[in-house]
Amino acid sequence: MQVEFTLDYTDATGARAGEIVTANARLETPYFQPVATAGAIKGLSWRTMKAIGYPHVLMNTYHLALRPGVERIEAAGGMRGFSGWDGGILTDSGGYQVFSLAKMRKIEPGGVTFMSHIDGSTHIFTPESVVEAQRVFGSDVMMPIDICSPADSERDKAAADLELTHKWLKRAAKSWEKTASDKSALFGIVQGAMHKNLRAKSAKFAAKLDLPGYAVGGLSVGEADDVFADIAEFSAELLPENKPRYLMGVGTPADLVRAICWGYDMFDCVLPTRMARHHVAYTRTGRLDLRRAVYSGDERPLDEKCGCPVCKDHTRAYLWHLAKLNEINAPVLLTLHNLYYYRDLMRKARAAILKGKYAGFAASALKEMGEWREEPDASKFGGR
Amino acid sequence: MQVEFTLDYTDATGARAGEIVTANARLETPYFQPVATAGAIKGLSWRTMKAIGYPHVLMNTYHLALRPGVERIEAAGGMRGFSGWDGGILTDSGGYQVFSLAKMRKIEPGGVTFMSHIDGSTHIFTPESVVEAQRVFGSDVMMPIDICSPADSERDKAAADLELTHKWLKRAAKSWEKTASDKSALFGIVQGAMHKNLRAKSAKFAAKLDLPGYAVGGLSVGEADDVFADIAEFSAELLPENKPRYLMGVGTPADLVRAICWGYDMFDCVLPTRMARHHVAYTRTGRLDLRRAVYSGDERPLDEKCGCPVCKDHTRAYLWHLAKLNEINAPVLLTLHNLYYYRDLMRKARAAILKGKYAGFAASALKEMGEWREEPDASKFGGR
Repeated sequence: MQVEFTLDYTDATGARAGEIVTANARLETPYFQPVATAGAIKGLSWRTMKAIGYPHVLMNTYHLALRPGVERIEAAGGMRGFSGWDGGILTDSGGYQVFSLAKMRKIEPGGVTFMSHIDGSTHIFTPESVVEAQRVFGSDVMMPIDICSPADSERDKAAADLELTHKWLKRAAKSWEKTASDKSALFGIVQGAMHKNLRAKSAKFAAKLDLPGYAVGGLSVGEADDVFADIAEFSAELLPENKPRYLMGVGTPADLVRAICWGYDMFDCVLPTRMARHHVAYTRTGRLDLRRAVYSGDERPLDEKCGCPVCKDHTRAYLWHLAKLNEINAPVLLTLHNLYYYRDLMRKARAAILKGKYAGFAASALKEMGEWREEPDASKFGGR
Repeated sequence: MQVEFTLDYTDATGARAGEIVTANARLETPYFQPVATAGAIKGLSWRTMKAIGYPHVLMNTYHLALRPGVERIEAAGGMRGFSGWDGGILTDSGGYQVFSLAKMRKIEPGGVTFMSHIDGSTHIFTPESVVEAQRVFGSDVMMPIDICSPADSERDKAAADLELTHKWLKRAAKSWEKTASDKSALFGIVQGAMHKNLRAKSAKFAAKLDLPGYAVGGLSVGEADDVFADIAEFSAELLPENKPRYLMGVGTPADLVRAICWGYDMFDCVLPTRMARHHVAYTRTGRLDLRRAVYSGDERPLDEKCGCPVCKDHTRAYLWHLAKLNEINAPVLLTLHNLYYYRDLMRKARAAILKGKYAGFAASALKEMGEWREEPDASKFGGR
């Protein structure tokens, strides 16, 4: 078994409720994947992650390949042996980080040579080496290395990037077929910058390879909100219906609520964990910045309707106090709350889909968050 | 009820096993109090503290009085309402911090005026105001403000400090008797620097006030190890047998093992939590500095015999990786381990005392830690 996907129900909006079973986890979709960049969810133990309902996380190939390095992870028997996590793992390919973090990069047909942003050492990622690294990690879902074109890429440049991305995808798939145990699945990634005809070409190319799942990449990279929505929705529709659809690097709670009705099943984003470290809580009614003095005497929990341990035990005034003092417990507690909130949002979304009531759920969730935008949202929920 | 102390058994070494019941917690002694300086155990939730066996913690009056301030804590109904902790609380008086942290201090018979180390604002602590602050906090055990003389204080200076400390103790006791609900106990503090006749005088003075418990202060402030041991042991013997004896600010695991056989019941120290933030683990076999490259490929847990979640889930190699990357989970996990280890050490000490086998337990624990010193230890364990 690699990835078994069951589509339980598709709502009139296009929102899908399903189930993904991998060798190490069973995910109810829509599923948000928390990001354990270096093999840890910053601030939370694996036990807590399981307790709040996350059987599966995302880890970063780029970071892990640099530190502690593929060899050390291999010696420990993979990322489960190394980190103590016994759940599901999807690893990205590191492509995005090579383009956003590495000091220098040189793209050649064979692969990409780059300098570590940490110590300047030189590394090479090829489609084959990246598959092999993820095989060593023990990833349930591997991602192929790709070129994440900038948001403002002209068509010609984006087309050239895409051509190489496709060549690499083919090589990655070949490598994966040869070396994959029955435990690892490879997903295809659709690129093409903000050009619809390239997106369509990419989806068609990837679909032909009949991979276990498909991701849409290259979004949330600085493009305007309406462009993001337009391309994300357009790209989802191009993907095979019977495979999981994963929107990479997205997003805010409002992004997720919208993207679910575009037909996506999986997401990942650093926001709930990273923003917690900046003292920001996500709640049903929007973001709270706990550094603001307005919370200094606020005896309410972050969210009165939230069932997380932080909302049960603590007031905003206490969290403000911890944030003000830069106490380590501020990010620890806010990370717990934020990930609980994201999980809860996905659970509620799934329940609404299964009842065929996603349009109403999404509209009221967005309104409550203060994220409702009359025109574009309305078209996304009912009018497709 | 303020503090009910039951002495279950006194071992031939002088080690005591007992029980302290306060309005909010039941402590099996010997008991180590973790330090929640600003109203939080850095890195751990209250739920985790309870789960690993800590029904009672120490908080700092100085820090809380400065931030968030007594008024805000009063508005939240005390430190339980403010912080969400529902267990026992002992608060120190802030005396030590006024002398070690504040920018400027002026001691007068009425009290001490000092400048906040944070913003330079001026504050006054009097024996009465400090009792009142702790009443507002809802402390189960209050400590009176005292003068913590430097380790190298000459007899005359130490005697003068002590005279004022005693005057303040009397005023604190009077204030406490007037305002104390039946929920708050006041402990006396024995001072006198490293001068035995002053220590004896102080213990006699404090004992006369017939307070619910007694602490020995002014130790672990830079004096030599043998002086510390000599004064700590000497001071304990002067204290009433039927009251809890609390050795303030102590110490390492080896310090605790030794101090227990001097007849102390309670301790507190920042070491297990602070050192965790410096990537140091305390184990049965001594300290491990997880930044050392020697652990980079070490697949063993911190301590093979430790039952804590960190030792069950993680290897030294993984903790080294987190420490190396300055991941927040390094201090979080090491704090959990260290506090679990301290709790476990106290549990085992208590069990050994109840069996009348503390001398053997202490000797083998110290040997395993690499902290055994033939002569002084032997005299402390059997020869009194």
